[in-house]
Amino acid sequence: MAVTRVSFVAGAVGQWRVEHVRTVVGQGLPAASALSRIEGSVFQNPIDAAWSLDGVRSNERYQEVMEKRKLAAIQEDLDRPASTCAALIPIRKLPEWWQMSQDERRSIFEQKSNHIAVGSEYLPAVARRLYHCRDLGCDFDFLTWFEFAPESRGAFDELLERLRSTEEWRYVDREVELRLTRNA
Amino acid sequence: MAVTRVSFVAGAVGQWRVEHVRTVVGQGLPAASALSRIEGSVFQNPIDAAWSLDGVRSNERYQEVMEKRKLAAIQEDLDRPASTCAALIPIRKLPEWWQMSQDERRSIFEQKSNHIAVGSEYLPAVARRLYHCRDLGCDFDFLTWFEFAPESRGAFDELLERLRSTEEWRYVDREVELRLTRNA
Repeated sequence: MAVTRVSFVAGAVGQWRVEHVRTVVGQGLPAASALSRIEGSVFQNPIDAAWSLDGVRSNERYQEVMEKRKLAAIQEDLDRPASTCAALIPIRKLPEWWQMSQDERRSIFEQKSNHIAVGSEYLPAVARRLYHCRDLGCDFDFLTWFEFAPESRGAFDELLERLRSTEEWRYVDREVELRLTRNA
Repeated sequence: MAVTRVSFVAGAVGQWRVEHVRTVVGQGLPAASALSRIEGSVFQNPIDAAWSLDGVRSNERYQEVMEKRKLAAIQEDLDRPASTCAALIPIRKLPEWWQMSQDERRSIFEQKSNHIAVGSEYLPAVARRLYHCRDLGCDFDFLTWFEFAPESRGAFDELLERLRSTEEWRYVDREVELRLTRNA
């Protein structure tokens, strides 16, 4: 298989405890007390789940080669023992975004909004993994997963605030923020 | 739903008669005498199908704004009465392709291989619709559909030959070519 599937499954029990759910824009998500991130999932509807969101780890869509190399040099992987805090941020963008050509989207994404540059300022503290779900016909376009230590909570809040103030974020019409802590 | 789904369903009966199936590289597809292209499908496994391939009409990945405008000005839609010939070409690219950054892929796709420029030389005679299926976890990455009149068969053959001789095609590790004529 060419891509790795992921399912985020919300319910009564799971790897991560849901501390807070905030609907940033658009429709929210049903309440749940726990969440699990399951890579290599088969997209089966889990029994007793409050909800589940499916996505794939797929190829990069905007990163240029020098950006990719720079990120690879400084970023760290998920599952660090100190990373007891996490966030899941599902996002959907407006049809106007998707109707643009590749260079128009890239221009807003990086030249105008500095998405990669801003994110890289918070590396390696805030580890990040992007999952795509638009082609799967899901309710969101992306599911972004973040992991960090408790002392990086403030930095993570600042990162979100900076990204949400960009021109790119004018095209976001649905966004939910789940904040989580790891279950012992 | 953000994207339009498509299913190509092969079997004993269908909209298009299969004239010829050629395995260009890699594993082929089982024999079938007819094929239907169903947009708005729900990806159910059709009963009695020899095989089916699913994809989505999704956003453009490489086109820049001037290329997009130029293509939009000269291309024609599918389903023209004179277009009694069609082709379905499922393609898969090597992991090396997908591991490249966006600018590296774009450079091979257009600067070195002239994919858009070459294709536009055959417009409006050869109408084309690209479906993506990599993120769906399918056996192919793309399903490209072409429609043209019988007198454009030679031009279409030439188009395929030119694309297959490009640097981009060195990254294609599975390709099947189905040639079809419309059932009355």
